[in-house]
Amino acid sequence: MNSRVLIALVVLGVSVTGRTQQAVSRGAGSELSEADRAAITSLLTGQQAAWNRADVKAFMQGYWNSPQLTFAGSNGITRGWEPVLARYEKQYPDQAAMGRLDFSELEMRSLGPHAALVLGRWHVTRQAGNLGGVYSLVLQRFPQGWRIVHDHTSSDATPH
Amino acid sequence: MNSRVLIALVVLGVSVTGRTQQAVSRGAGSELSEADRAAITSLLTGQQAAWNRADVKAFMQGYWNSPQLTFAGSNGITRGWEPVLARYEKQYPDQAAMGRLDFSELEMRSLGPHAALVLGRWHVTRQAGNLGGVYSLVLQRFPQGWRIVHDHTSSDATPH
Repeated sequence: MNSRVLIALVVLGVSVTGRTQQAVSRGAGSELSEADRAAITSLLTGQQAAWNRADVKAFMQGYWNSPQLTFAGSNGITRGWEPVLARYEKQYPDQAAMGRLDFSELEMRSLGPHAALVLGRWHVTRQAGNLGGVYSLVLQRFPQGWRIVHDHTSSDATPH
Repeated sequence: MNSRVLIALVVLGVSVTGRTQQAVSRGAGSELSEADRAAITSLLTGQQAAWNRADVKAFMQGYWNSPQLTFAGSNGITRGWEPVLARYEKQYPDQAAMGRLDFSELEMRSLGPHAALVLGRWHVTRQAGNLGGVYSLVLQRFPQGWRIVHDHTSSDATPH
């Protein structure tokens, strides 16, 4: 076998291997568009701003207003927009408890034409003690725009 | 306005409201098929069985074998199939540490034709102390079948 054939086979091998690593859904150019990226970034920036003016209801506008909304964490799963709001209101009863929220290290991945996964880091700075951790958000596209349909949030094991 | 017209308007109102609550991706019959449900259940059952014979590598077959695989939790985000395997091997070095794993309360949602969200509860029974919590798995369909592309796992705040 001459070296040119060998190189061709190696390239083919890499190409085939690369192919099987790709999700079926990625085959048809379903990467998140710039417009979708901008819309999701705007949703999260809006949530951060709402939190920082202690407006939990405005913060909640980023979530799917449905009994099927889910929020997972170290207290299990909370179901429904109203219970998720109630959970935030209980854990963060006033502006001092809410502190200042920052999102960072945002990473967005397409899950098909109308769904996306966003990973990020959250950080709350406040007098009662800082908090932080990572979150995973699953968003879906609705007629009125992107909304978070599932949120899984963790607090860091190491203190802040 | 007679009552029949009123009823018609109420029904229409409910219908329109119901409509706006639906994700765009749900409009075209993209609910998870029975075959997809069965395939994902089989993947998770296989993971549970692999864990319970202390075969972490077989357990890891349920995950996307890619540097882009992500695992989120109270230690932040681990990236890549090899690092996720290494994390499991470190946290659960032998059969005694692994104990017996059970998944329960499985809930599967379609995120479009080739992506799904699975929520569930995990429980490890072992002499060194039981563990448990909830997880969120994002799966995508690949030519070789469904694989977990993102895992966010929490431990319960209250001990087991």
